[in-house]
Amino acid sequence: MIIDCHGHYTTAPAELQSFRDAQLAAWKHAGGDAAPAAPRISDDAIRDSLENAQLRLQRERGTDLTIFSPRASAMGHHLGDEAVSLAWTRICNDLIHRVCRLYPQNFAGVCQLPQSTGVAPANSAAELERCVRELGFIGCNLNPDPSGGLWNSAPLTDRHWYPLYEKLVELDVPAMVHVSASCNPNFHATGAHYLNADTTAFMQFLTSDLFKDFPSLRFIIPHGGGAVPFHWGRYRGLAQDLKRPPLEELLLNNVYFDTCVYHLPGIELLFKVLPLDNILFGSEMVGAVRGIDPRTGHYYDDTKRYVDALGLSEAQRAQVYSGNARRVYPRLASLLRQADG
Amino acid sequence: MIIDCHGHYTTAPAELQSFRDAQLAAWKHAGGDAAPAAPRISDDAIRDSLENAQLRLQRERGTDLTIFSPRASAMGHHLGDEAVSLAWTRICNDLIHRVCRLYPQNFAGVCQLPQSTGVAPANSAAELERCVRELGFIGCNLNPDPSGGLWNSAPLTDRHWYPLYEKLVELDVPAMVHVSASCNPNFHATGAHYLNADTTAFMQFLTSDLFKDFPSLRFIIPHGGGAVPFHWGRYRGLAQDLKRPPLEELLLNNVYFDTCVYHLPGIELLFKVLPLDNILFGSEMVGAVRGIDPRTGHYYDDTKRYVDALGLSEAQRAQVYSGNARRVYPRLASLLRQADG
Repeated sequence: MIIDCHGHYTTAPAELQSFRDAQLAAWKHAGGDAAPAAPRISDDAIRDSLENAQLRLQRERGTDLTIFSPRASAMGHHLGDEAVSLAWTRICNDLIHRVCRLYPQNFAGVCQLPQSTGVAPANSAAELERCVRELGFIGCNLNPDPSGGLWNSAPLTDRHWYPLYEKLVELDVPAMVHVSASCNPNFHATGAHYLNADTTAFMQFLTSDLFKDFPSLRFIIPHGGGAVPFHWGRYRGLAQDLKRPPLEELLLNNVYFDTCVYHLPGIELLFKVLPLDNILFGSEMVGAVRGIDPRTGHYYDDTKRYVDALGLSEAQRAQVYSGNARRVYPRLASLLRQADG
Repeated sequence: MIIDCHGHYTTAPAELQSFRDAQLAAWKHAGGDAAPAAPRISDDAIRDSLENAQLRLQRERGTDLTIFSPRASAMGHHLGDEAVSLAWTRICNDLIHRVCRLYPQNFAGVCQLPQSTGVAPANSAAELERCVRELGFIGCNLNPDPSGGLWNSAPLTDRHWYPLYEKLVELDVPAMVHVSASCNPNFHATGAHYLNADTTAFMQFLTSDLFKDFPSLRFIIPHGGGAVPFHWGRYRGLAQDLKRPPLEELLLNNVYFDTCVYHLPGIELLFKVLPLDNILFGSEMVGAVRGIDPRTGHYYDDTKRYVDALGLSEAQRAQVYSGNARRVYPRLASLLRQADG
């Protein structure tokens, strides 16, 4: 079985974005009192949006199940206010839930959180709990910068995040560290902001004792960890200079990386420097890069091809393609039993 | 000859920092009117600060000349105001000039710019010109985020940078894109802010026509380009999706990368994905990472060892170790002739 740990519903029916546009317009003009009704999206529209996109690509590439969450760039925690973010988040999560019910063999749900600039992360715990307990979700995306590129809230290691971490631990679900769109003209979203956030989060973890306080808290840093594996020697050296424990001990029981790196040399590096235990297969399809590489004739984001090219043993392949995901997302196992049953 | 394109005067005599502390205290309390006198630093103090640090490491590692600039983390363009930044910058640059006069075989000067949050980059052109024409400097460090991690000024591709670029072109000197310290608790300086800035700058270049306007403008992106080479497939794919020209054509005549990547797998990747023409040897010693890797028994930042391990031909080595630097810093050639003469 091949589990893709990183997929967003980037192809959702247009009604979803129309709702969002109307919601934000209403908030801007009337302070939210005139919020539009939830979008009406039929099961057929959902099927149409997936059949020729994620589902076709799963079949073509030979992957089985995608850990699936709302479109990251559309989370927009910097837009509207807390109530707007909550309403939008619930609609996005409910739609993911419908996807997972329509295709229980193909998708497992991960939720967006109703974060909002300047609002305590604790306020996201209830929606996380709803998604996990009521909708059967197995994790969440956590935005380390709800301001959308202004980076004006506290680092992930600050205690104001702790109530949310307590809920993650209680529910035994991991969080993928994933920013949303950037409202800062310096940062292109998928070409800079995403990777910067990955790099930033890792260094925050490196300089803190967060995982002493939460030994079972688990984060996936997407996009192969941003700049981290490429600079693994720098991070080992910085940890040493800062008198921190070795990285293995300090954070590799808690921090995982996906394979969303869109060329073979990058994937080779990832597997050369990180323990196999810490790498989860992921592609982020349909996502940031949608084209076909003229040099190979294959999609840039068909990361399975790069992993397949590494010459891993069967046991190693099983670990990267499914074993690690089952371990990091323990609720996945019962979900898979239900889907099979 | 082996030229290290990236060294900062991180070991400057303590009088320099004492001056800076007094300068900032004076500015805070008296608005700058009580600025202290310039620090008095003897030639012997300069020699002492280098002999057992950069010069010893040059000898031990077998490198010849370091392209040398003031300590990057101390530029502090977000501290004080424009007058404070200019006074501090001139003192730092003058000190580099003295280093280069004392050791003309070992150091070539690159200047800090008197940038200041909210101040037009045009205002840095005069100090750049002074350093190049009067002090014989061969390039500058350009801070893409003078706010120190707030990222509240315009991208490097904005026209407000153009007057400074015109001066760079007129003087035929390149700029290394290099941020300073971070006042944003989200960003550890050397573990996040530096690498994020590198990644950010590259994506700014990718999405603009800057090099159509300035075909001979040259930037060095340090720290191996941040996350860029590790995500080279992502950038090729993003350029393609955005209908930009291929990266080679779009920016590889103008953008160069150093080898400040502190482990062999990272250096291997760098050389695998980037044209050899675009890689300049650099180590940033004495810099961000100062320890010895217990796995190898050598300094993490002894990047020459990694490059030597690549099995390059003599011609390729000459290109990375000196040819590319001579091409990117054309004023280096006449400087070397003077030093030899």
